This record gives sequence, C-alpha cells and structure tokens, in this order.
Amino acid sequence: MEQNLPDTIALLARTPAALDALLRDLPDTWTLRNEGEDTRSASDVVGHLNHGERTDWMPRAKMILEFGETRAFEPFDRWGQERESQGKSLGQLLDEFARLRADGLAELRGMKLRSEDIQRRGLHPALGVVTLSQLLATWAVHDLTHLHQISRVMAHQYDAAVGPWQRYLGVLKCAGHSAP
Amino acid sequence: MEQNLPDTIALLARTPAALDALLRDLPDTWTLRNEGEDTRSASDVVGHLNHGERTDWMPRAKMILEFGETRAFEPFDRWGQERESQGKSLGQLLDEFARLRADGLAELRGMKLRSEDIQRRGLHPALGVVTLSQLLATWAVHDLTHLHQISRVMAHQYDAAVGPWQRYLGVLKCAGHSAP
Repeated sequence: MEQNLPDTIALLARTPAALDALLRDLPDTWTLRNEGEDTRSASDVVGHLNHGERTDWMPRAKMILEFGETRAFEPFDRWGQERESQGKSLGQLLDEFARLRADGLAELRGMKLRSEDIQRRGLHPALGVVTLSQLLATWAVHDLTHLHQISRVMAHQYDAAVGPWQRYLGVLKCAGHSAP
Repeated sequence: MEQNLPDTIALLARTPAALDALLRDLPDTWTLRNEGEDTRSASDVVGHLNHGERTDWMPRAKMILEFGETRAFEPFDRWGQERESQGKSLGQLLDEFARLRADGLAELRGMKLRSEDIQRRGLHPALGVVTLSQLLATWAVHDLTHLHQISRVMAHQYDAAVGPWQRYLGVLKCAGHSAP
C-alpha cells in the first residue's frame, strides 16, 4: 500500500488521544518501569515522541522541500529527549505531545502538498536518498512502533504474574524492538 | 512483579477508551486490513476482545470461586467472535467493548475480593491448575497483547511505504504473535 496523506494524517492525529486514554493517571507500576537496563518506560517513550516532534518529522519535511538531496538531515539524537523530559510528569509529557502534534499537523496541512511534492527527494545521513512520502509514512509507523513498544513494556511488568498463560501471550515473546 | 488488583483494574478500565481514541472513524485502510490470510484486522481484534468479555474473563473468575479445581473452564472459542461480530461496524464494536468492560469491572469490584480469594485455584482445560490472580493478570496482558497486535497490523499496511526506514522500525519485524 502506498502512503496516502489523508490516511497518514488521520492516524497521526489520533495517537496523542490514544496514549492519553491509556496512560494518564495510570499507576506508576505500569508507566515508570522499563524492560531492564538501558530500556525505556512508557513515560520515557512519550518523551521520545515529543523529541521527534521537535527535531525530526516536520523539520526534515521542510528540509526536503527546501534543500532536496543537496543537504543531509541532522542525525536524530535518540537520547535527546532525556534532557527535554527531565523533571516532567507523565501528564505534562502527554499534554506536550498533544500540543506539539497538533502544531505539526497544522503546519503540514498548511503546506497543501501536491502529489509531486510528496515525491520530492531528500538525503538521510545514514539511509541515503528518501522521499517525502517515505518520511510521512515513517512518521505514522514510528507512532505505531512506539505504541507496540509501550504495550510490550507494560506487559513485561506482569510477565511472571500471568503464570502458565505466558505461552499464549505473544506480547511477552516480542523481539521486534526498534533499533539501533 | 505480583498481580495487584487495583493496578490490574486501572489498566483494564482504560483499554476501551484507548482503542476508541485510536480507531474510531479512522480510515478503513487502517482498520479493516489484516496481515494476510487467516489473520485479523484491527476491527476483528475488537470483536475478539468483546468475545473474551462475554465468555472468558469474568465467567472463568466466577468458576474459580464457585468450583475451584473440581471443574475445568470451557475451552475458549478463538473464532467465536466471528458470529457475534457479523454485520457490526467498528463503531458498534467499540461501543460494545466499552459497555461489556464496564459491566465486567463493576461485577469484579462488587466481588470485594480479599487476598485469600485472589489465591484461589481453578482448572484450565489445557494449562492445568491456575490461580485467580493469574487469570486477572492475564486479562490485563491479553488487552496489551492485542494492542500490540493492532499496532503491528496497522503498521504492516505501510511496510513498503516507509522505504529504507523499514530497518529501524521494530514493529515491522515483530514475530510476537499470540498463539495458538
């Protein structure tokens, strides 16, 4: 299936409310625990999503439209959100995500991209030539990979508690971690 | 981590609103497509969750309290929701999930389970002896395994659209499918 802008925007627009409904005021045992050393909690993931809104998606979309393949994107600082998230509660991070996402989508809609714009090419510092269409599809799938991660991180907290049911529950066997 | 009843209920109470925020009125390309033959779409998964509310979780909890290990649970009919979901829109399935879940949790809270009740044992037809605590933990992780599945099924629709970013997105490599 091709990237389709209205479909992409419909999904991107829903993620903040979905995470809010799932995570706000949920006990810390679900939201602040991770999967072990150097892994993220659900709360950390929301901070990571905020960092992407600030530095990755729309900034890169604008670079493609402005510079094409002549200038590579800034490498994405995968741990940059640690600084930005410091001292913020999960509620604050969720508020921030809703605001940043709404602003980003307003800006995207305001660009009134035509199909030839969507095919414009840019330069990723590691992946080489990419299109704006691929970037927008990745923005949406990036939401989904982190929803997938959040469900896995939370399920991990009850890994032992489910007892013999463990073998039936795929989420407890997932090795589909986003990397590097 | 042990199963903790308030934590379990807090999670179970949020899943319907989270799925509603994610899926309601989302384009069919996200909600009605699956991962290939004999797999489920996001909409099918909501039907499956409804079937579990009707036939699995609270009915089994009551069987443990009533019969202990003397009577095995009815085997879970994994495709039973096909009959119940037929002809229903995703919006109807989401409404149904919210209602069934609220009813189930009202019933659970009404039981005023003490810690000795939570340790009561029942008989699973395939897994053998299980505790009520394990059943309740599994109810919560079952929500998470299907949130995990929904994010994967939706991401699959853009598997090709993301182009070279595919390698960074764990959700596109997930093999943590709930089975059998």
